[in-house]
Amino acid sequence: MLDTLIADIAARMATAPDRGQVARYIPELAKVSPAHFGIAVVTADGREHVAGDADLSFSIQSVSKVFALVEALQAHGERVWQRVGREPSGSAFNSIIQLELEQGRPRNPFINAGAIAVTDLIAEGNEPREGIGAILRLVRSLAGDDTINVDGAVAYSEAATGFRNAALANYMRSFGMIAGPVETTLQVYFHQCAIAMSCRQLARAGRFLMHAGRCPTSGKPIVSPERARRIAALMLTCGHYDASGEFAFEVGLPAKSGVGGGILAIAPGRASIAVWSPGLSPQGNSLLGTKALEELSRAMGWNVFNPPPAC
Amino acid sequence: MLDTLIADIAARMATAPDRGQVARYIPELAKVSPAHFGIAVVTADGREHVAGDADLSFSIQSVSKVFALVEALQAHGERVWQRVGREPSGSAFNSIIQLELEQGRPRNPFINAGAIAVTDLIAEGNEPREGIGAILRLVRSLAGDDTINVDGAVAYSEAATGFRNAALANYMRSFGMIAGPVETTLQVYFHQCAIAMSCRQLARAGRFLMHAGRCPTSGKPIVSPERARRIAALMLTCGHYDASGEFAFEVGLPAKSGVGGGILAIAPGRASIAVWSPGLSPQGNSLLGTKALEELSRAMGWNVFNPPPAC
Amino acid sequence: MLDTLIADIAARMATAPDRGQVARYIPELAKVSPAHFGIAVVTADGREHVAGDADLSFSIQSVSKVFALVEALQAHGERVWQRVGREPSGSAFNSIIQLELEQGRPRNPFINAGAIAVTDLIAEGNEPREGIGAILRLVRSLAGDDTINVDGAVAYSEAATGFRNAALANYMRSFGMIAGPVETTLQVYFHQCAIAMSCRQLARAGRFLMHAGRCPTSGKPIVSPERARRIAALMLTCGHYDASGEFAFEVGLPAKSGVGGGILAIAPGRASIAVWSPGLSPQGNSLLGTKALEELSRAMGWNVFNPPPAC
Amino acid sequence: MLDTLIADIAARMATAPDRGQVARYIPELAKVSPAHFGIAVVTADGREHVAGDADLSFSIQSVSKVFALVEALQAHGERVWQRVGREPSGSAFNSIIQLELEQGRPRNPFINAGAIAVTDLIAEGNEPREGIGAILRLVRSLAGDDTINVDGAVAYSEAATGFRNAALANYMRSFGMIAGPVETTLQVYFHQCAIAMSCRQLARAGRFLMHAGRCPTSGKPIVSPERARRIAALMLTCGHYDASGEFAFEVGLPAKSGVGGGILAIAPGRASIAVWSPGLSPQGNSLLGTKALEELSRAMGWNVFNPPPAC
Repeated sequence: MLDTLIADIAARMATAPDRGQVARYIPELAKVSPAHFGIAVVTADGREHVAGDADLSFSIQSVSKVFALVEALQAHGERVWQRVGREPSGSAFNSIIQLELEQGRPRNPFINAGAIAVTDLIAEGNEPREGIGAILRLVRSLAGDDTINVDGAVAYSEAATGFRNAALANYMRSFGMIAGPVETTLQVYFHQCAIAMSCRQLARAGRFLMHAGRCPTSGKPIVSPERARRIAALMLTCGHYDASGEFAFEVGLPAKSGVGGGILAIAPGRASIAVWSPGLSPQGNSLLGTKALEELSRAMGWNVFNPPPAC
Repeated sequence: MLDTLIADIAARMATAPDRGQVARYIPELAKVSPAHFGIAVVTADGREHVAGDADLSFSIQSVSKVFALVEALQAHGERVWQRVGREPSGSAFNSIIQLELEQGRPRNPFINAGAIAVTDLIAEGNEPREGIGAILRLVRSLAGDDTINVDGAVAYSEAATGFRNAALANYMRSFGMIAGPVETTLQVYFHQCAIAMSCRQLARAGRFLMHAGRCPTSGKPIVSPERARRIAALMLTCGHYDASGEFAFEVGLPAKSGVGGGILAIAPGRASIAVWSPGLSPQGNSLLGTKALEELSRAMGWNVFNPPPAC
Repeated sequence: MLDTLIADIAARMATAPDRGQVARYIPELAKVSPAHFGIAVVTADGREHVAGDADLSFSIQSVSKVFALVEALQAHGERVWQRVGREPSGSAFNSIIQLELEQGRPRNPFINAGAIAVTDLIAEGNEPREGIGAILRLVRSLAGDDTINVDGAVAYSEAATGFRNAALANYMRSFGMIAGPVETTLQVYFHQCAIAMSCRQLARAGRFLMHAGRCPTSGKPIVSPERARRIAALMLTCGHYDASGEFAFEVGLPAKSGVGGGILAIAPGRASIAVWSPGLSPQGNSLLGTKALEELSRAMGWNVFNPPPAC
Repeated sequence: MLDTLIADIAARMATAPDRGQVARYIPELAKVSPAHFGIAVVTADGREHVAGDADLSFSIQSVSKVFALVEALQAHGERVWQRVGREPSGSAFNSIIQLELEQGRPRNPFINAGAIAVTDLIAEGNEPREGIGAILRLVRSLAGDDTINVDGAVAYSEAATGFRNAALANYMRSFGMIAGPVETTLQVYFHQCAIAMSCRQLARAGRFLMHAGRCPTSGKPIVSPERARRIAALMLTCGHYDASGEFAFEVGLPAKSGVGGGILAIAPGRASIAVWSPGLSPQGNSLLGTKALEELSRAMGWNVFNPPPAC
C-alpha cells in the first residue's frame, strides 16, 4: 500500500504545473532542472520504498544542519546551547536583524546563523578539511554508504557568492559567539551545505531519529533517546525557517528542508522520509516536497499530533 | 502510579524556593499568592487525578485563546486564517513590531494581537455580552460545568490597564485586520481572559483535544480530527509565546500558557493536563507549571516526539 | 525681485504635471484638489510677498506640531524633554517600531508619537476644548488673526479614522509616557491637526522664529533666542519625517511639513515662508511645496549652510 | 578674545571629572589616556587659535568619512548617491538592521556602512594602497601638510578586530551595493580611519568647508559651493551617529565626530574648528569635545540657526 501511495504521489508531482522557483542565489543550484521529484521512505522494519528520482543525487544544503548539530552534540555536549538557542526565529533564514537585537546569539541551529555557530564548534582549532571530514564521516556512517561526498562545484559556488553568510559569521565573531577564524568556519559550513545525497541515502541517514536515536543496523545509540526527541522538537519548531509553523500545521512531522529542494522528515517509530524537488516556496522550502509530505502524512496518519493507535 | 507521581510533583513544587514573579501589570493578578500549585490530569479512560490546589479557581488568561480559536473556527471556519497566521512570532507576547512589518496581520492566534483578531470575528456585529457569552458557553460545555464564570474584578482590572492591548487593537483596525468597534472587541477580549477556572475544570475542558476533537461525554465532534491536530500543532509551535521552542524542546507536548500561571497541555490519546502556579518566567509562562509538566512528561513518556509504543 | 521670483515659481508649479498624491487616509483631506499651489513670504522687514493660492485655507496638519511644541515649552519648560527626544527617527511618521524598542519614548516632537506626547502635556487634567483653545490662542496671536479656526469636518474625519494614532497613544500610555486619558489627548491632537490656515496666515505665524523668538509686532519674546534656534534645529533634523535629511541636503532651511500639503520654512533673520500644494511625496511631504522651497532657497541664497554675507 | 575663550575652555576641560569612556573595541585606541584635551580654531581670516593638546596627533577615525566623501564626489560625482542615502539613520553607528530592511543601501555616508560603500567607490579596481593614497593625498593637500600619515598600528588593530565592519561590507556585497573585493575595500577603509592628525591639522583640513568649498590658500574650488553646503547639511543631520539631533539642538554646527575623540566642526563663513578628547559618550562621540563646542558656539554666536548679523 505504501508503495502504491508513493508511486501515485510521485506520478502526480512529476507533472504538477506549479513547481516553485529553483534557488538562484547559488549559481550551481540555479542550473538544476525543476522537473525532478523523488521520494524515499524507510519504515521501522527497515524496508525501503522509493519512487521518482529517488536515486539521483542533489545538494542537501540546510538538511546538513541536522547532521552538524548531531556531530556538535556528540563532540561538545550541552556546550552547544551556549552558542545557539532553541526558539523559532520569526524571520527569514538569512536574516541578520535578530542577531543584532539579541547580541549575536542565533535563535536556533537550523537558521544559517545558528548552523554557522554550530559549525564553528566543529571546526574549532582545526584545518577546514578536518571539520568537513568529521561531518562527512557521520553522514556516511548514518547512511551506511561511503560513496557520499561533497559536490566541489557547489561548495566553490557557495564560497564565491556566500557574502550574506560571511556577514553573519563576521557579525557573530564580533560578539565572540564564534571563536575560530571566520574563513575556516565558513569553509566547513559551505562544504557541509554542498554534501550531495539521493533521497534514498538521506532517508537512510535519518533512520536513527525514527528509532529514538539508535542506529538500526549496529544497534548503537547515535544520540540518547532524550536528544533524539529534542532534535525532533527543534525540527518541528524550526526546521522550515519562517514557514515552520505552517509545516507543523499542515504536515505535523519533524522535518528539515534545504534550498536544494530536499526535505528529511521523521515519523517517530514509523518512518524516515526524504523527498526532493528543486522548486522552492517564497520561504525557501521545496514546494512539491512539502505537498508530497502533506499527502503522505495524511494518508498514513503519520502526524505527531494524532493519538497513537490503541493497542 | 500517576496519582503518586503527581502527588510527589505537587509536594515538591509546593516548597520550591524559586517560584518566578507573579504578573504585575494587571493589578488584580498581582494580588495572587505565588505559593499556589495545582495539577489535574484527565486520562484517556476519563479518570481524574489531582494534587495540590487543583480545585482552586485562577484566571486562565491566555489559555482562553485556545477556546476563542475553537469558537471562531466553529462559527467562521477557514475564514479565521485570513485574519491570523500560523507561525511562531519570535517576539514577546505583546510586541507590536511584527504587526508593522507585516501589515497588521498577526502571526498566530496565541499571541495577544492574534487572539484579539480572532475575538473580533467572534464579537462581530454584536454587543460585547453576546461575544463573551459565546466563549463562556463553549468553555462550560467542554468542561461540563455551568458554574464557570468570568471574574468581573479581573476583567475590570484588565480593561482599566490594557493600554497595550488597546494599542494592538487600534493598530490592526488601522489596517482593516479587525472590523468591529475596537471597544467591543476589547471588551470581549478582556472578559475572555478573565475567565476563572480550576485545574480540574481546565483539564476537563481540554479533553476533546486529547480525543482527536471529540467530546468524551457526548461523543460529538467539537472540531474535526484534522482541526484537533492543527490546533495541537499551533499549541506546540506558538503556545508559550517566545519560549515555545524551549517548551517543545523540554516537554514536547502541545500546550498553552496564561499569565495567570495556568497551562493546559495535551498528550494526544493519553491525557489532558492542567497545571497552575502563579509565578512566571521572564517570558511570561508559569515557572513551576512548566517544571511540573517537564517532570510529568518525562516520567510518563508523554512526548509527541517519542515513538509510539509497539503494539 | 522676490515678488517676480515667487510669481514665477507659482506659475510653474501651477502647471507642473507631476504633483504627487493627495493624502488618502483622512477622508476629508482626500477631497482636496491637487491643482492648488500657494506661497507666502514674510521678510525680515515685515513685508508680505504672495503668489498663487496664498489666501486659501488648508489643513495645516503636522505643521501644528511646531505650535504645540511652543505651547508646551511655554507652559511646562524643559519638562517637555522628559516626554520626547530630539533625534531623527529614521522611520515613517506613524511608525510604532521605535516606540517598542525605546520603551515608549518618542524620538522627537515632530513625528506623530512625539506630537501626541507633547499634546498630552498641554491637555493634562483639562477638558479637550481647553487644550485645543490654548493651541488655537497661540496660533491666532502669532499670526495676529483671530479668524483662524479648526475645521470641524477634518477633525471629525481624523478622529473617525485615526486608529493608528490611537495605537500610538495607547502604546505610550502603557509605558506611562502619556498621563492623561487617551481619549482627551487624542481629541486635542486631532483638533490641532485640523487647524485651517492660508499660506499668508501661516507665514505670519512663523515670523517669531525668523526673529530669534521675538514677536515682530509686540516686540515681546515668544520663546528665548536659545529656544528659537533649538526649535529651528529640530525642524531641520526632524521636520520632514523620514525625508528630513534630504530636505536639509536640498533646501537647507528649518521647516515643518504637514500631510495637508503645507510647509512652514524659516530663513533665520531673513524670512518666514509658507507653501502649500496638496500632492505628497511617498514620505508624506508636499511634492511641489518642497520643489518651490528648493528653488526659492537657491535663488535667494537662503540656506543656513551658506556663509553669511560679508558685511 | 577668541584666544582667551578657548584657553579658558581648554583649562576647564583639562580638569573636568566626567570624561566619558575611551573606545575599547579597537585595542590600539583603548591605550590612549582620557586626560587629553585639545582645540584648534582657524578663523575666516586664516588666523589659527589653539589651546591644550592642539598639536598632538590622534586617530581621526570617522572624521575621515568627510574626506572620503569629498574624494568620492570628486572622482565619481553624483554616482555616489546611488550607493548611499542622505538620511539620518535613527540607529547606532555600526547597526546592521536598517541594511536588511532597506536592501543593503546605507542611509548616509557618515555611518560605518555608508562610509564603507563610499570607500568601495574609491577603492574600485585598484590595489588597496592606491585607494589609501588617494584619500591621504586629499587630506594632506587640504591641510597643506605632507607629514600627515596613517598610523599603521591602529590600522592593523582595526583590521584584526573589525569583524562588525566586515559583516557590514559582506552584507552590502551580497546586495551588490559594494562591487569590489570585500578585503580591498575594508583595507582602504581601515587605513583611512587610522589617519593620525592633530587638532591644528584637522582644523586646517576643514577650511574649505568654511569657505563654500574653496581652498583658502590656492583659491581653487575643492568642491562647488552647492556641494559644500550639502556636505555641511549631511554633517549636521548625520555627523554624530544617533546623537546628531542632540548635537544640532545643543551646538547648531555641521560637524563630524570620530571614536578617537576628535570632532571637526564648521561655522560657515566664520571658522573651521577641531577638538579632541578621547573619552566618549554612550553614542560614541567625544564627551568633552562636544561640551567644548557647545560653549564655543554659544559664546561666539556660531550657530547656523542664529540670524546672521545685521550689516
